[in-house]
Amino acid sequence: MAGNSIGQVFRVTTFGESHGIALGCIVDGVPPGIPLTEADIQHDLDRRRPGTSRYTTQRREPDQVKILSGVFEGVTTGTSIGLLIENTDQRSQDYGAIKDLFRPGHADYTYEQKYGLRDYRGGGRSSARETAMRVAAGAIAKKYLQMKHGIVVRGYLAQIGDVACELKDWNIVEENPFFCPDASKLEALDELMRGLKKEGDSIGAKVTVLAENVPPGLGEPVFDRLDADLAHALMSINAVKGVEIGDGFAVINQRGSQHRDEIRANGFQSNHAGGILGGISSGQTISANLAMKPTSSITVPGNTITRDGEEVEMITKGRHDPCVGIRAVPIAEAMMAIVLMDHLLRQRAQNGDVNSSVPRW
Amino acid sequence: MAGNSIGQVFRVTTFGESHGIALGCIVDGVPPGIPLTEADIQHDLDRRRPGTSRYTTQRREPDQVKILSGVFEGVTTGTSIGLLIENTDQRSQDYGAIKDLFRPGHADYTYEQKYGLRDYRGGGRSSARETAMRVAAGAIAKKYLQMKHGIVVRGYLAQIGDVACELKDWNIVEENPFFCPDASKLEALDELMRGLKKEGDSIGAKVTVLAENVPPGLGEPVFDRLDADLAHALMSINAVKGVEIGDGFAVINQRGSQHRDEIRANGFQSNHAGGILGGISSGQTISANLAMKPTSSITVPGNTITRDGEEVEMITKGRHDPCVGIRAVPIAEAMMAIVLMDHLLRQRAQNGDVNSSVPRW
Amino acid sequence: MAGNSIGQVFRVTTFGESHGIALGCIVDGVPPGIPLTEADIQHDLDRRRPGTSRYTTQRREPDQVKILSGVFEGVTTGTSIGLLIENTDQRSQDYGAIKDLFRPGHADYTYEQKYGLRDYRGGGRSSARETAMRVAAGAIAKKYLQMKHGIVVRGYLAQIGDVACELKDWNIVEENPFFCPDASKLEALDELMRGLKKEGDSIGAKVTVLAENVPPGLGEPVFDRLDADLAHALMSINAVKGVEIGDGFAVINQRGSQHRDEIRANGFQSNHAGGILGGISSGQTISANLAMKPTSSITVPGNTITRDGEEVEMITKGRHDPCVGIRAVPIAEAMMAIVLMDHLLRQRAQNGDVNSSVPRW
Amino acid sequence: MAGNSIGQVFRVTTFGESHGIALGCIVDGVPPGIPLTEADIQHDLDRRRPGTSRYTTQRREPDQVKILSGVFEGVTTGTSIGLLIENTDQRSQDYGAIKDLFRPGHADYTYEQKYGLRDYRGGGRSSARETAMRVAAGAIAKKYLQMKHGIVVRGYLAQIGDVACELKDWNIVEENPFFCPDASKLEALDELMRGLKKEGDSIGAKVTVLAENVPPGLGEPVFDRLDADLAHALMSINAVKGVEIGDGFAVINQRGSQHRDEIRANGFQSNHAGGILGGISSGQTISANLAMKPTSSITVPGNTITRDGEEVEMITKGRHDPCVGIRAVPIAEAMMAIVLMDHLLRQRAQNGDVNSSVPRW
Repeated sequence: MAGNSIGQVFRVTTFGESHGIALGCIVDGVPPGIPLTEADIQHDLDRRRPGTSRYTTQRREPDQVKILSGVFEGVTTGTSIGLLIENTDQRSQDYGAIKDLFRPGHADYTYEQKYGLRDYRGGGRSSARETAMRVAAGAIAKKYLQMKHGIVVRGYLAQIGDVACELKDWNIVEENPFFCPDASKLEALDELMRGLKKEGDSIGAKVTVLAENVPPGLGEPVFDRLDADLAHALMSINAVKGVEIGDGFAVINQRGSQHRDEIRANGFQSNHAGGILGGISSGQTISANLAMKPTSSITVPGNTITRDGEEVEMITKGRHDPCVGIRAVPIAEAMMAIVLMDHLLRQRAQNGDVNSSVPRW
Repeated sequence: MAGNSIGQVFRVTTFGESHGIALGCIVDGVPPGIPLTEADIQHDLDRRRPGTSRYTTQRREPDQVKILSGVFEGVTTGTSIGLLIENTDQRSQDYGAIKDLFRPGHADYTYEQKYGLRDYRGGGRSSARETAMRVAAGAIAKKYLQMKHGIVVRGYLAQIGDVACELKDWNIVEENPFFCPDASKLEALDELMRGLKKEGDSIGAKVTVLAENVPPGLGEPVFDRLDADLAHALMSINAVKGVEIGDGFAVINQRGSQHRDEIRANGFQSNHAGGILGGISSGQTISANLAMKPTSSITVPGNTITRDGEEVEMITKGRHDPCVGIRAVPIAEAMMAIVLMDHLLRQRAQNGDVNSSVPRW
Repeated sequence: MAGNSIGQVFRVTTFGESHGIALGCIVDGVPPGIPLTEADIQHDLDRRRPGTSRYTTQRREPDQVKILSGVFEGVTTGTSIGLLIENTDQRSQDYGAIKDLFRPGHADYTYEQKYGLRDYRGGGRSSARETAMRVAAGAIAKKYLQMKHGIVVRGYLAQIGDVACELKDWNIVEENPFFCPDASKLEALDELMRGLKKEGDSIGAKVTVLAENVPPGLGEPVFDRLDADLAHALMSINAVKGVEIGDGFAVINQRGSQHRDEIRANGFQSNHAGGILGGISSGQTISANLAMKPTSSITVPGNTITRDGEEVEMITKGRHDPCVGIRAVPIAEAMMAIVLMDHLLRQRAQNGDVNSSVPRW
Repeated sequence: MAGNSIGQVFRVTTFGESHGIALGCIVDGVPPGIPLTEADIQHDLDRRRPGTSRYTTQRREPDQVKILSGVFEGVTTGTSIGLLIENTDQRSQDYGAIKDLFRPGHADYTYEQKYGLRDYRGGGRSSARETAMRVAAGAIAKKYLQMKHGIVVRGYLAQIGDVACELKDWNIVEENPFFCPDASKLEALDELMRGLKKEGDSIGAKVTVLAENVPPGLGEPVFDRLDADLAHALMSINAVKGVEIGDGFAVINQRGSQHRDEIRANGFQSNHAGGILGGISSGQTISANLAMKPTSSITVPGNTITRDGEEVEMITKGRHDPCVGIRAVPIAEAMMAIVLMDHLLRQRAQNGDVNSSVPRW
């Protein structure tokens, strides 16, 4: 079956091409009685929106979301919620040049192989524009998680190129165009971006997402473990090439005596596991890292072929981010929120409201 | 819903606890007419089986699989295939000591939080013993992939601790107890293992899995991309904390001009993408890396609490691997094969046998 | 999980309330390359539309469908198709009176029990207005079925009250307001309707749907048999209380020697089975009957209670059909087409294009 | 995808052929902490078992179920439950004669069309023997429903041929070989059966299933309404050709003023709806009827063709019921219990434990 849905109880289904008429989604399974307005959703859409800084694509879209159903008298009704964003800045003429060739590093070739044809306007469905609806659906999940469980899902840019940013201050994350949590790195990032603009090149990035206050017990062994479903959701974001939970790839060189998180009466003594043990949340903060590849939409010339197999050299014109990782923070938060929301409801389905005699922290 | 199934068209559902009566699975959606015998499945089970080398747990089980349905006159019938492995070496008495405490780094605490109770015998359902049925189901997928499409799925141990193993020779992978592809590293690995045995400690590992000859077009945007479903399947293996596709986390410091795989008339000029673009297979070799944490079943004492919240110090007795990554190679292969098989059938569902005019390699 | 989706490969997800802003749906899994325009969909929407005859509700909505995605240069692209119908005739004021009571025979009480609240405007999500999106999605399925396989799905009104209508002439079905296939019954139906209008009462109906030229092999034993999935889809239509396949309830008094459809070299000699044996299509015409209850929106006074449990007598004012079965014909066709489409693709997924040596008719 | 699973949260997946090694199923999503023994399941298996009376097939199988996983120290653990019944009375030799022809009224022809081959031994997967695992899984659901909610699911034979049986006394249902609730009809049924035996013919039947004490709120509009999912589950039973909810096909000739169930302070005044309004349970008793066709396994000669298309006349030898409806009562109960169990958990997933201020009865 086709793959435009995610989640089982909290289920998000999306549609929309980069240069089509509109983007939309249906969010099914939302518990009734949750206060919800368009403003709740718009906030995260604005964080993701292109054109908000000089480091991201200059495409300017208001990305104004409309709630078409499932909300009545200010609260969710439990029926499916329809969301819509109209595309206002379509400029199809920009993209005619790529109609008959396969941009290297893009999905042009694979979409054509899969479907036998493709919507070549701005990448069609393969464009990162699609992620707007992820952010919209994720905003509903975030609201529920916060309201009902005090769960906070938030992320930051952890690295661009060789500039690593440590989590020093959540407050500055929303106040700089990089979602960088380390004020001392802003200048280096700025310089890096300016250099890339000049070269017409792009660079990769690492994004970190955390979920605090997640209750223990979420995750469905043995295949739909919480970490497995997070890996699925995060890897499904455009340009992601790697996902880590907790210590991630650093575990390769760790000893068991070092990695295992010991427990005392006051709780876990460390969090190498990233909040997930045996695929089930432990009550500790859940942490994940994403590796995002450098965008292939650059002005450095590259070799490719046309649909007829002829070799050509090409550059990508137009409005593009030198680092797609920058705008990925709200998207990664949304995907983590969607997974947590879904698993909270799945846990409730089988196990009800957990009420064991086990000590909790 | 509970999570003991994986795949949509080729759908695998498993059951079984470490020290229960039996492990089993149902494989649904297998195309009819595929020759299949128990020997086809047994081969990979033997590769995964504990007790085959001095480096892995000394639990000795024949792990003899029985096909209970879905095969008639030597070929699959298209109906659901039931597989069964009886547990013969249960030794429940070994595990009574851990009944009332939560082994650090294990799923004891989280299972108890999730379900309010747990089968404490050998970890119950959270034991890696469960992966035997993944390997069994994966063997069916591997056979189909090889027979119908010439696809070869195979893996190797890429690193243990700080001993990295390059892919030098597929032939030796099956001939050493580490699945190591680099003869020059066998001694270092042996020494590392012996040291860990002595210390009663364990270590992490990195496993690489490749799929060659995968046709282009597999993967279902935007959520069930091939890389997303691989990440899900691989992260669902016990002890996995990270998954990479292609260059993985190395992309963070790559330029777009360096990462994108250029195309010429004779095909792609590199494979940084790991065979997947826009979530769809490109026809190149698919590559994935897994980071496996060091097992927490060690004899180095560790702190934890009992079910009543009392602090205790504990060690894990019994038969355990110092590096669970060693036996993970056949499991990782199985999970990749299951995902590819499922996506081949999903692709056929919507798009039929691909027959486009696009050049193929 | 919530239930606003149907189908597995060809998957339809809908949203929208009777008096909300819009109705919409996402159709996922549509094979690429199918010519599709809004006019293809509009035709069936117009057949279902209220206000087209004096026998159906006088609510006047153009029900103009927009295709928002998934179609490019006139053909489907294989990506998800977004469809939208804006509600133009909302008249919320009509419905304020029922805000605090449960109309007998309606879903007011059960929605309130399920969700703890409800959108009381015109029945909200429980209104038959929701079926517009079923018809829209079904039109895509019908087009594919006809184009690729020559399958014709069509239905007729088989009975209203005690006026039974035999299938005498397909040509007149679209030419009378009842979808009646028997010209000799039109006057009796007209008289029956006029009597009901006068009495302010309503009546039940029986609808028959047929699918011709369905290839053998569709249906997925043992639970998703073709007849089981048809029963699910048809019973999910508002007001349906019974579903029959083939001879249906008449089999209770049949002998085996009479019911079984014998086979000769020229094919089946009868079709008591309604085209489905063992849950799989046989290649014969598939037939189903639906029993539709009389609508409870009548002006005959009835007893009920308020949300506070107080007893009241009520009548339903406003624009309502005396027989909802009349407009159900296009809806029943749509649901059958959606199921057949889904099963064609599911069959292709596991079994490929059937190519056996079995004789076919 | 293949169809050997049913349910979403409470999910049952089955395997097994009539003359294979064993039948089995995996029941996933069972809430933890439910006391469960093999005896709980065996009871209903014994009710379904052939050979218990002179009116049903003389195949004698103990149908002894084994619980292989998911139960520990007498209670369910929340992990997947594996169930197994070994086939002990296979007698494959009986069936060689039908290897190369298509028995009329059976699934031989359609299985061969679907899969290109078939397990011809006793009908393979299409045999009603498959229903044993439905009954086994249903017994788990029944236990939970009774224990946690006081829900009683029970059925009876409502009609065979022209002998209708009214629900006069639940007590006698289990005490006669027909599951007949009307002592005055036992002689007529006995006579009917003896006549059929003599003629070598068979007859259809009507079965009624009821669920009492079902809480309001179950059912997932708009497609997975409770009635739609019941229709799916009941129609998926071998030989079922029709399903009714509440008044069923009788509604065709009812007036709205007559059909709608009025409400007073003491509850609903009638139950024409069969306990379901708008696809959601109302708190009233849920009622469903099934029409079961006469088995085609009769000794009256019939025409058919061989796999090569040659015309032949055949009779079905062996051990067969003259009325498969007799043994269908426990199967129908099981399917209704599975659906209710699944919907209870689905309802809890989205809506939690219902706690509205709406009056309940």
